[in-house]
Amino acid sequence: MKAVRVHEYEKRPVVEDVAKPEVTGPLDVVVRIGGAGLCRTDLHIIEGQWAEKSGVTLPYTIGHENAGWVEAVGSAVSTVEPGDPVILHPLATCGLCRACRAGDDVHCENSQFPGIDTDGGMAEYLLTNARSVVKLDPSLQPADVAALADAGLTAYHAVRKAVPLLYAGTKVAVIGAGGLGHIGIQCLAAMVPAEVIVVDANQAALDLAKSYGAAHTVLADGGQVDAVLDLTGGAGAQVVLDFVGEKGTEAQGIKMLRRAGSYFVIGYGGHVDVPTIDIISTEINIVGNLVGSYNDLDELMALAAQGKVRLHTRTYPLDAVNEAMDDLDNGRLQGRGILVP
Amino acid sequence: MKAVRVHEYEKRPVVEDVAKPEVTGPLDVVVRIGGAGLCRTDLHIIEGQWAEKSGVTLPYTIGHENAGWVEAVGSAVSTVEPGDPVILHPLATCGLCRACRAGDDVHCENSQFPGIDTDGGMAEYLLTNARSVVKLDPSLQPADVAALADAGLTAYHAVRKAVPLLYAGTKVAVIGAGGLGHIGIQCLAAMVPAEVIVVDANQAALDLAKSYGAAHTVLADGGQVDAVLDLTGGAGAQVVLDFVGEKGTEAQGIKMLRRAGSYFVIGYGGHVDVPTIDIISTEINIVGNLVGSYNDLDELMALAAQGKVRLHTRTYPLDAVNEAMDDLDNGRLQGRGILVP
Amino acid sequence: MKAVRVHEYEKRPVVEDVAKPEVTGPLDVVVRIGGAGLCRTDLHIIEGQWAEKSGVTLPYTIGHENAGWVEAVGSAVSTVEPGDPVILHPLATCGLCRACRAGDDVHCENSQFPGIDTDGGMAEYLLTNARSVVKLDPSLQPADVAALADAGLTAYHAVRKAVPLLYAGTKVAVIGAGGLGHIGIQCLAAMVPAEVIVVDANQAALDLAKSYGAAHTVLADGGQVDAVLDLTGGAGAQVVLDFVGEKGTEAQGIKMLRRAGSYFVIGYGGHVDVPTIDIISTEINIVGNLVGSYNDLDELMALAAQGKVRLHTRTYPLDAVNEAMDDLDNGRLQGRGILVP
Amino acid sequence: MKAVRVHEYEKRPVVEDVAKPEVTGPLDVVVRIGGAGLCRTDLHIIEGQWAEKSGVTLPYTIGHENAGWVEAVGSAVSTVEPGDPVILHPLATCGLCRACRAGDDVHCENSQFPGIDTDGGMAEYLLTNARSVVKLDPSLQPADVAALADAGLTAYHAVRKAVPLLYAGTKVAVIGAGGLGHIGIQCLAAMVPAEVIVVDANQAALDLAKSYGAAHTVLADGGQVDAVLDLTGGAGAQVVLDFVGEKGTEAQGIKMLRRAGSYFVIGYGGHVDVPTIDIISTEINIVGNLVGSYNDLDELMALAAQGKVRLHTRTYPLDAVNEAMDDLDNGRLQGRGILVP
Repeated sequence: MKAVRVHEYEKRPVVEDVAKPEVTGPLDVVVRIGGAGLCRTDLHIIEGQWAEKSGVTLPYTIGHENAGWVEAVGSAVSTVEPGDPVILHPLATCGLCRACRAGDDVHCENSQFPGIDTDGGMAEYLLTNARSVVKLDPSLQPADVAALADAGLTAYHAVRKAVPLLYAGTKVAVIGAGGLGHIGIQCLAAMVPAEVIVVDANQAALDLAKSYGAAHTVLADGGQVDAVLDLTGGAGAQVVLDFVGEKGTEAQGIKMLRRAGSYFVIGYGGHVDVPTIDIISTEINIVGNLVGSYNDLDELMALAAQGKVRLHTRTYPLDAVNEAMDDLDNGRLQGRGILVP
Repeated sequence: MKAVRVHEYEKRPVVEDVAKPEVTGPLDVVVRIGGAGLCRTDLHIIEGQWAEKSGVTLPYTIGHENAGWVEAVGSAVSTVEPGDPVILHPLATCGLCRACRAGDDVHCENSQFPGIDTDGGMAEYLLTNARSVVKLDPSLQPADVAALADAGLTAYHAVRKAVPLLYAGTKVAVIGAGGLGHIGIQCLAAMVPAEVIVVDANQAALDLAKSYGAAHTVLADGGQVDAVLDLTGGAGAQVVLDFVGEKGTEAQGIKMLRRAGSYFVIGYGGHVDVPTIDIISTEINIVGNLVGSYNDLDELMALAAQGKVRLHTRTYPLDAVNEAMDDLDNGRLQGRGILVP
Repeated sequence: MKAVRVHEYEKRPVVEDVAKPEVTGPLDVVVRIGGAGLCRTDLHIIEGQWAEKSGVTLPYTIGHENAGWVEAVGSAVSTVEPGDPVILHPLATCGLCRACRAGDDVHCENSQFPGIDTDGGMAEYLLTNARSVVKLDPSLQPADVAALADAGLTAYHAVRKAVPLLYAGTKVAVIGAGGLGHIGIQCLAAMVPAEVIVVDANQAALDLAKSYGAAHTVLADGGQVDAVLDLTGGAGAQVVLDFVGEKGTEAQGIKMLRRAGSYFVIGYGGHVDVPTIDIISTEINIVGNLVGSYNDLDELMALAAQGKVRLHTRTYPLDAVNEAMDDLDNGRLQGRGILVP
Repeated sequence: MKAVRVHEYEKRPVVEDVAKPEVTGPLDVVVRIGGAGLCRTDLHIIEGQWAEKSGVTLPYTIGHENAGWVEAVGSAVSTVEPGDPVILHPLATCGLCRACRAGDDVHCENSQFPGIDTDGGMAEYLLTNARSVVKLDPSLQPADVAALADAGLTAYHAVRKAVPLLYAGTKVAVIGAGGLGHIGIQCLAAMVPAEVIVVDANQAALDLAKSYGAAHTVLADGGQVDAVLDLTGGAGAQVVLDFVGEKGTEAQGIKMLRRAGSYFVIGYGGHVDVPTIDIISTEINIVGNLVGSYNDLDELMALAAQGKVRLHTRTYPLDAVNEAMDDLDNGRLQGRGILVP
């Protein structure tokens, strides 16, 4: 089969023929890929930034946002069967550690991450296990939802954790209406009655946010903290979801908080730096957010099937992987790029 | 001022002149009534069904779903001022007991209930205290929202308690799409991503439910339990909200539940009767629901101001109270009757 | 190996030689049994009461409260290794359904129940899977804790669910200080600061309860509801844990509740029968409780290792199974009977 | 009556005669002081550090940890009567804002803070309102518990928030076993089954912590992070309660955390400074903690009445206030100093 393989860091990946993966263990699942999302992380992998962290042996196949159809299953797999459309949770987890058993499988003590530390989905077929496959509603096409597997799942997870805080009459500020943020805004509109205030430096992103249900938009032109305070009657927002997490949003996000509010860190790159007296005198919370669990992904797919969460995508054939990467790298790619074998 | 007074049980109430209430204590608030909802409970009061329970001394003024404008406030009232549009929480609570301090003011150990055990709002003015007045958004008219003060608040409260159970992909069955139920359906649509299944014996009520966002409607013709099981893939609903609570819905509601599901009792009149083995073997919960808290009412008003919860009302002048009661009693009243002084 | 086998319902089980189970699948675990708890359910199995429910094919080996040492593991088992002391969660679950992934593995859609619907632990060896084995602290002996696997786990699970309700200053009434109840009392003492009131018809059980930390004991002589109300200043208990669930405790337990209190059904045999008006006017909850999850069992073993939960046991050799059953049936067995191969 | 008055910042306070406060409003309560805790904040007040923040007009009476007996009550006070022993919540709150109504009265929008921004309790009598008085169990002496009103309440509040995270088998690291910390340790022992690890630079404080139920103690000699990781099998603690919050404990505390763990900031003076990638990749939480609510104080008094939380105190007559302050300032005061009029 064809696969996008990295042979050497800082060189372009190669589309080449490799052996099609086979089911060997009882929980194995081979998936025929319908679409593999292209993500900035893929550029970083090729630059070698993940080399040490992942410890992967070259050459290997990239692609960590995958969806398709079940091709073959191991003897103990009862939850899906060949032909089923599926999306893949980014991690193939163990199902035995406390985290897996408690619904926190993202913190699995013994997981694999296809496309990062083992062969991924920019290929015709992918080998994973039964713990990672989420069955899709027949109305959903794998290529349309593939990019929800990682980016979308992270946004969903953060919003879901914020649900108890976002009752009617509350206000939530969303910093960053880009890839993750615009999914987060759709999740908020679908899941909570809170008023959504979106902050971004890009007016087009703000306009899109409005169409997804944002009550207010704020152009990040230096006055965004004051603008959010004004929109919240001077008190601040109960929740701030920071999809940027760098370049000053860390401090701004905390300043946008109401007393006893919660600042959700989702994007990264910067620092949270706050005097402990400020943390205690207002009794705020700073909440880390990683990608969501398997059940989170299942729930996000329910929203997608109901038409409540949509993605803008542009498809490329597998052979055009480097063209797609160039488009992404040069800002020519509107929406998410999806490689379709 | 004019007021609707009960002088004798089983006799029609009288509209007569009484002294306008005055502020005497520092937390007192006098409200100029903009609308007082008429409710089946008012009929029961006149029939004498509440005589013993309330212990009220006749004559007194009825009306327990009240909204209007602040007329005068005591010296310690800082939260509203004359002219403010307000809706009144049904209870005037103490603010000192553990329940009041914990957000459960409905379980206040020392409250009054205007319209039930002291003078109510079918009058030009009502005396209450600062703990019961919720300030309204300027976009809301007191007469339009008055009936949310009790019936609407009960529906909201039950839905709010169910929020953590109703994540994306879950299903909730609503039994009864009448006065409370149709507000409950609007609250569900505004607050959770769960799929709403509505069960009612009245096709017109089901059609209205659809317009409020119900995904499925089921005519209660004897096959409603099977219909709900079918709509949930045989597994049952995670949550059943029973706005009827009598005439068999108690048993039907429990049969509609999924394993580990929760049956919310809101309507009443019947019995919950379940073998303990059925409760433990499926690990279900049976959840009682009373009217909501002050903060719940404040939140419901936020939904109303956002246009997410609406009521059908028909207004009557205060003098037409007996005509309104006849209309209610004889099923001629579509929507809620509101008395406007 | 030797095993206790049921060949025919309503006949005594037979101790006979059968093939030792072998590891065949990658997640299989064979356990050398150190102790198998004897439970009233075993008597009911032999009487045929479970024949239809379990659908098990005779002959088979009973024993559903099992602990021992790992004898052999499949190729994919990374969490235990031969020689490890373990206790077995009663269910061998799938790890793939939503319930398993959410920490509610007791509601697994695809589980086996050794000793009930497949060969159990009254034998020298037992075959299970990696999802059921909880590694024991070296300080714990399998025969000492085996009976915590089912009865103890049920008590622990109910108490754990009640934790958020049982803050300092609250009161919890425990109905029934027998097999499950006396473990529940120890869990309460270890886990919450609430004052524990124990109700039982047996004075010796009450004395034992006192030694486990009960603040008050009430002899169930007909005046137990009044006694609990007296001990709670007339208000009732925030939580009632009913380990009996029959013979009138269902109604008594609900009468012991405070407004907004929760009645936990753990024992069974009777009926909960309450007017819906009583459920809503006091806003009470009725909470079903099944056995605990794998993680619950792991937590209970932490308490056992800390010496906070202890069991009275009496051991019998496997060959004496019928003597042990006679002792249990005739009330001659103090504490739990444990069969040791 | 006699009172400890600050006339000028950076000068010693004076004990002088002032008018005894009187009840004027219906919710007023005058308390005869039984004991007023002396706290490092009192030294800071005299140094002028609070001058701008509190905006108090000099002269005024200090003392913000107060307990005594009700002397007189306003006409609307139903919860206490003259002669009742009481402890005072540090804030006199409004009871009308959302925070007060939601159980978060510490975030009251309109409160007074006796001893900080109005006359406090180092006096024979104190004027407060009905929302601040917690009735004491007859077994408790005001002078013995006064210092729990603020310092103790802060420790209790943080532990109570951590309860859901501290199930059996978890580990909690406590940084700082001084004034607040040693109450926190007692609260942990009373309220959760988690294993408590205490870190302090003072061996005597660690020995005391052991006597209060700490499972492990760690001398803060530079190797404390490694020591905590060792004691948690390399994984870190589920919860870290930092009662210091400065001088490096901020960074150390976060390093002691397990994946998805929570770092509770209670002490202050330093900075939390963490790269956002570290917050998201381990999905940790940073949780601010202020003093507890009225209900929290009521709960803490339940623990005190049960003998589960004790304080070491040393009493001084009111006239010896400057001697007591000197003892505190010079480290000669073991336990808390209590001024007794």
